Amino acid sequence: MQVSMGVAVAGATGYAGGELLRLLLAHPEIEIGSVTANASAGRRLGELQPHLVPLADRVVAPTSAETLAGHDVVFLALPHGASAQVAEQLGSDSVIIDCGADFRLTDPAAWQQFYGSEHAGSWPYGLPELPGQREKLAGARRIAVPGCYPTTATLALLPAVTAGLTTADDVVIVAASGPSGAGKSLKPHLLGAELMGSASAYGVGGVHRHTPEIAQNLAHCGAAAPVISFTPVLVPMSRGILATCTTPLSDPSLTTDQAYQAYADAYADEPFVHLLPSGQWPQTQATLGANTVHVQVAVDQAAGRLIAVAALDNLTKGTAGGAVQCMNIALGLPEATGLPLVGVAP
Amino acid sequence: MQVSMGVAVAGATGYAGGELLRLLLAHPEIEIGSVTANASAGRRLGELQPHLVPLADRVVAPTSAETLAGHDVVFLALPHGASAQVAEQLGSDSVIIDCGADFRLTDPAAWQQFYGSEHAGSWPYGLPELPGQREKLAGARRIAVPGCYPTTATLALLPAVTAGLTTADDVVIVAASGPSGAGKSLKPHLLGAELMGSASAYGVGGVHRHTPEIAQNLAHCGAAAPVISFTPVLVPMSRGILATCTTPLSDPSLTTDQAYQAYADAYADEPFVHLLPSGQWPQTQATLGANTVHVQVAVDQAAGRLIAVAALDNLTKGTAGGAVQCMNIALGLPEATGLPLVGVAP
Amino acid sequence: MQVSMGVAVAGATGYAGGELLRLLLAHPEIEIGSVTANASAGRRLGELQPHLVPLADRVVAPTSAETLAGHDVVFLALPHGASAQVAEQLGSDSVIIDCGADFRLTDPAAWQQFYGSEHAGSWPYGLPELPGQREKLAGARRIAVPGCYPTTATLALLPAVTAGLTTADDVVIVAASGPSGAGKSLKPHLLGAELMGSASAYGVGGVHRHTPEIAQNLAHCGAAAPVISFTPVLVPMSRGILATCTTPLSDPSLTTDQAYQAYADAYADEPFVHLLPSGQWPQTQATLGANTVHVQVAVDQAAGRLIAVAALDNLTKGTAGGAVQCMNIALGLPEATGLPLVGVAP
Amino acid sequence: MQVSMGVAVAGATGYAGGELLRLLLAHPEIEIGSVTANASAGRRLGELQPHLVPLADRVVAPTSAETLAGHDVVFLALPHGASAQVAEQLGSDSVIIDCGADFRLTDPAAWQQFYGSEHAGSWPYGLPELPGQREKLAGARRIAVPGCYPTTATLALLPAVTAGLTTADDVVIVAASGPSGAGKSLKPHLLGAELMGSASAYGVGGVHRHTPEIAQNLAHCGAAAPVISFTPVLVPMSRGILATCTTPLSDPSLTTDQAYQAYADAYADEPFVHLLPSGQWPQTQATLGANTVHVQVAVDQAAGRLIAVAALDNLTKGTAGGAVQCMNIALGLPEATGLPLVGVAP
Repeated sequence: MQVSMGVAVAGATGYAGGELLRLLLAHPEIEIGSVTANASAGRRLGELQPHLVPLADRVVAPTSAETLAGHDVVFLALPHGASAQVAEQLGSDSVIIDCGADFRLTDPAAWQQFYGSEHAGSWPYGLPELPGQREKLAGARRIAVPGCYPTTATLALLPAVTAGLTTADDVVIVAASGPSGAGKSLKPHLLGAELMGSASAYGVGGVHRHTPEIAQNLAHCGAAAPVISFTPVLVPMSRGILATCTTPLSDPSLTTDQAYQAYADAYADEPFVHLLPSGQWPQTQATLGANTVHVQVAVDQAAGRLIAVAALDNLTKGTAGGAVQCMNIALGLPEATGLPLVGVAP
Repeated sequence: MQVSMGVAVAGATGYAGGELLRLLLAHPEIEIGSVTANASAGRRLGELQPHLVPLADRVVAPTSAETLAGHDVVFLALPHGASAQVAEQLGSDSVIIDCGADFRLTDPAAWQQFYGSEHAGSWPYGLPELPGQREKLAGARRIAVPGCYPTTATLALLPAVTAGLTTADDVVIVAASGPSGAGKSLKPHLLGAELMGSASAYGVGGVHRHTPEIAQNLAHCGAAAPVISFTPVLVPMSRGILATCTTPLSDPSLTTDQAYQAYADAYADEPFVHLLPSGQWPQTQATLGANTVHVQVAVDQAAGRLIAVAALDNLTKGTAGGAVQCMNIALGLPEATGLPLVGVAP
Repeated sequence: MQVSMGVAVAGATGYAGGELLRLLLAHPEIEIGSVTANASAGRRLGELQPHLVPLADRVVAPTSAETLAGHDVVFLALPHGASAQVAEQLGSDSVIIDCGADFRLTDPAAWQQFYGSEHAGSWPYGLPELPGQREKLAGARRIAVPGCYPTTATLALLPAVTAGLTTADDVVIVAASGPSGAGKSLKPHLLGAELMGSASAYGVGGVHRHTPEIAQNLAHCGAAAPVISFTPVLVPMSRGILATCTTPLSDPSLTTDQAYQAYADAYADEPFVHLLPSGQWPQTQATLGANTVHVQVAVDQAAGRLIAVAALDNLTKGTAGGAVQCMNIALGLPEATGLPLVGVAP
Repeated sequence: MQVSMGVAVAGATGYAGGELLRLLLAHPEIEIGSVTANASAGRRLGELQPHLVPLADRVVAPTSAETLAGHDVVFLALPHGASAQVAEQLGSDSVIIDCGADFRLTDPAAWQQFYGSEHAGSWPYGLPELPGQREKLAGARRIAVPGCYPTTATLALLPAVTAGLTTADDVVIVAASGPSGAGKSLKPHLLGAELMGSASAYGVGGVHRHTPEIAQNLAHCGAAAPVISFTPVLVPMSRGILATCTTPLSDPSLTTDQAYQAYADAYADEPFVHLLPSGQWPQTQATLGANTVHVQVAVDQAAGRLIAVAALDNLTKGTAGGAVQCMNIALGLPEATGLPLVGVAP
């Protein structure tokens, strides 16, 4: 490819938008076009995203069909419900990659139950590690980037499901997360004074919107009727998700070594999934700013459960990095182009 | 009571020992006698525990039968294995309250499996909220203070078990914790640079030593054969545990309201267990430095599970506060004497 | 005193209001009357301040002359500018203790310059450690509680000024602080994701409103014409201020030992100022939730400066604890009544 | 350049060594050769630096003349005192870049006073932004990388000194820092439980070893007799330094606009120094993992001082990034090769 692709980012002043721009700045085949937002239109990006030094003097444009038109790729990093509207107005000449939820679920009833609004439809689901999914994303013109928790939990459990180590009919997931996943929202419980030094659960009892998305993914992996109990926990770090996922054993005599081998086989060729050395457990720090997922697995025969833990950066592999990975696949670029493999630790 | 009780603290320079002294300083019926440690004997406490201003000039004595003798109560805040030795040397004239693990488990086989050493025996278990346990602690001369995770998880699940809402035969517990529970140990993974901005699981796969203790407690509550999958997660806060506990429903049609009512009934008279208003979820910050446990419950019928979340301060209700609560009961003092109900938040 | 004093707290849902209630709950001579706020009137306090367990069922009243009337003491924890209005409406039968800035400065020009509004006047200044100030607070009916930075910096420098070790004509103060001092304000830079893992200066260049208040205090201590360069720095902790204060030496041959002795003399009888053992430096953690200030001093002869460092909890000694201390003095109670000396550490 | 340069890293298991490897992995002209350490020799790097995924299977070699020989460039990330020994044993065919202190100071007396040992000599000082220094580093075979505080403070003050805005004869610097600068040392005060939620000063009173290095740099910039009061403050974040630097005005009528212009002029062509838009103050988060320094300046005429604030990542621009920048210059590569300009925020 000799000519750079022009890329626009809608929602450029939020956390996901900022992370998209961070990654796109390091991408060798991309030229950043419009950066748009609504409330902050007209301000310089340097005031709002001071880490994006090379874009400091860019002026934020309003998010509209006009400002987003004419780009090879348009990333949408908008609140739930806003993407569908914008997408409608954009022609078919742009690849649209939506970091929001609007087009993730294939089941209208699940959408209706968890989001309480009309289902906008579904787009190719941007988790290339799902069986057969990489092929569907090649050449795609519309992509729905997964939620950050579903990416983490799915990649923790995928080999267990595809290898038949579990029926996934009583999966329990508890995921610790930093607040950047909630975006730059001015809500009291997201204030620093509330969060620092504190852990708290939210969306408890099967009501979190990422629950049906995780089930959809495990079904995609071959689970006949996945049942998910999912609880997110806010903890005091800006970024990062650590998902502890337990699922019943199909065979009560399964050993940790056997499970580890299944994971090693499943992920042998995945560029961004890193199975840690046996016995070493993931820490989110090791994935900070990288597009990697660190995974480990153990079997607890006494409990009859397999426990898989995955760590990732919710803004990178969990959102913007995953989105760029999808863009690479959609455009026929090498999948890892421009994406960091090494976290910023400690 | 007109005469103060003399109290010694062994292990006074560690985190649990420091918390014991913080609470004892506010206790109206207590006089602090010997404060002992090994490596730091001879130093002034003010150098090692600068927050304990009124004790700044106390000189740390070595931990020995001599320095601990002659007190009405002796608290042991020592590494695993050390308590049994010290306890043997102390006569029966002191009440001994052990914050370590040595005397918690009643089953020698469980001890052997998880601790790998000879079982020292078992003492009355210091969780007064367990059915019938308060009575056993009254007048006790030896008390084994529970582990911090078992206190959290047990109090999260107790009403569900005693009310028969669950059989507890497939309990999954994931608990986020600050590192102070690991003590002042010089281990690389406890360094601030490693912990800040990071979440990590440890002791995964059914190997954490608190697992059999949780099972023992749920059995005490009436579970026929409790099965526990327990995973602890280190998160970046000094203190605090947030345990997310899920357990299968006995009756698939149980509602959240019914579960809430069972919890309200079970904890109506407990001074330190605070069932939050319906729909409000615990945050560890609200319990910081207090002897309280904040609890909430929900039913996820789709998942067939009850989810209970409990938050506490691992050094207060999770260790030292629980120990003082036991002391009060053992000595016939009002149970809440000297114990804070209000956390330091935000 | 046999009859409890009735106390109202206006602004009870904010951070300073919550801390006042935490301390008042532990105060043996007080009964908590009205708890008021504006936006949250009608809600239960337990939803807004979950750590205040004993007050969980209290309903928040609107802040008005009616709800605040009839109390022996009224604490105002309101935004700048609001206190003067409320105070006017309250009769002289209540002691009013204002945690806001309205009545702190005695110089109308300084007020005008830094706050840009009409000067409301000045009330007795609530820093009992200032020379002669304790006497002025005894029996006072109106008290202006100092700002959190002025309390920290003044107590760091007071002995140096009163003992003539410095002329204080080129004082440089840099103070690290947690964000709770900014209150529960919904501002982007106070979001957890922005603050965690980050340090940032603000109010730089002599514009922070606490600057003239520090100068006023040092003048009170005897400095002829104090000149202050003050820079606050936000750091990732909920609570706490650590002020590093440097000031030119009057005598270039002053030694650290001499300075230490002056500090020891000045603070020998102060109940809440704790001069650390020589060579040990303050950490905010040791003061968390306590009404204490930890102080240490050194002389840097090569730089011609004395460096004093003070740590405190901005919500306790820095605001609400200082306010209760003043109340005790004003009412003739022992000054330390109900106030913790021991921080919650680690 | 068509052939990659072979690079060895001594001290590869520490924080500075890990950061060197992170940056070198992204460097297009480099091949990573030996990675060495002492205590951990023989272990796989993946166990010790889990974020360095592409190097996970590398075995750590012992640090010795043999393992380090034969590389074009050798980075030393060793404890103080160790570098001189190793450097002696290496021939002149390798460029040696020392991240330690051994060769930073030119004045043997200053070395003796602050480090208490024999002066090993001085190497070209690796701060290319110093006047004339870039030229001295071109082609250099030995380079002493500056300390992290000196880099921060020097770049904060450089334009003020070179433009004559200050005489720098009474500079006061207070710098907030995360603990990763102290390395992976097992010291009690570096434990997470001690650091989280706490700020503390250390090395107070002119004794910190970076003090003479800052003075040396300001002298290099033209200050006749710089006098420095420097106090470092540990705050709860893994990485980052925020230095607040104040210095007396040469001309009392200097305005902030004039100072800003001097800074803009001085840094117009510096690739890694980013002067923020007027009125916007640095936050360390915006530099996380980047080789950038963010700077802002204000004049406080009332205090007679210029205040400059600089933020950087102590492990990147403050150590390893600065080292790679020097390597680029020494080897004749474009100075910014492989070095990130964009921080990982929030």
